[in-house]
Amino acid sequence: MRLTRQEAQRRFGSARVARLTTVTPEGRPHVVPVTFAVTGEMIYTAVDAKPKSTTDLRRLHNIRANPYVAVLADHYADDWRQLWWVRADGYAAIADEPAAMAAPIALLAARYPQYRDDPPSGPLITISVIEWIGWSARPAD
Amino acid sequence: MRLTRQEAQRRFGSARVARLTTVTPEGRPHVVPVTFAVTGEMIYTAVDAKPKSTTDLRRLHNIRANPYVAVLADHYADDWRQLWWVRADGYAAIADEPAAMAAPIALLAARYPQYRDDPPSGPLITISVIEWIGWSARPAD
Repeated sequence: MRLTRQEAQRRFGSARVARLTTVTPEGRPHVVPVTFAVTGEMIYTAVDAKPKSTTDLRRLHNIRANPYVAVLADHYADDWRQLWWVRADGYAAIADEPAAMAAPIALLAARYPQYRDDPPSGPLITISVIEWIGWSARPAD
Repeated sequence: MRLTRQEAQRRFGSARVARLTTVTPEGRPHVVPVTFAVTGEMIYTAVDAKPKSTTDLRRLHNIRANPYVAVLADHYADDWRQLWWVRADGYAAIADEPAAMAAPIALLAARYPQYRDDPPSGPLITISVIEWIGWSARPAD
């Protein structure tokens, strides 16, 4: 059954990992797991400080060419009555100015202790959510 | 570090859920969690027998217009040294003839008991993998 927008946002916000989906300039899909923080209708995710291959930066290249993204959080269990997922459809921008990055990085650090010790130095992806779509195998508790 | 193709395939095959990413005719990304089976360079996933909203069938509509897909399996842990993910990039086709569906459905039923009792009646998505890309925070055991 479909989740209400409020319940979809609540479940999405409770997830520790999501998958960021973008489209390449050639029109092919690309997807990577991401850590993230949410506030209201905004989702933030960072390119962290670890050395990255060019593959890992493809998400930034894609967003510059086509800002539309979809972000998925899901819960799997062998008991399929427990399945649920939430997808946030929206558009992304890239922030690399320290002033624009400070508040989102604080939100990320509040969720992930690793970011307190080692704040992400790479650019930040800021996603404006247009629609929250959620499904659950059974009604919300 | 990058995983070998063999290790990427092994880890992907061990996952219980993956995320199927497609591109809409308007060039926007779409992503849903899927159960799946793998054999060699093929991935199979089904549209199951439960009533589905039109949203859930968007994946079929997208594939008919643009066959390129990406499928992601990932492992999250609060200890980031345990993180890994594998992405299979490929192209999809839709099978709805019983003769073409029998073997893939048997593979799905071997992995998921639910499909033994209630085989998927909807179409099957068959994905030919072009490339397996895998990353792990630490070397394979």
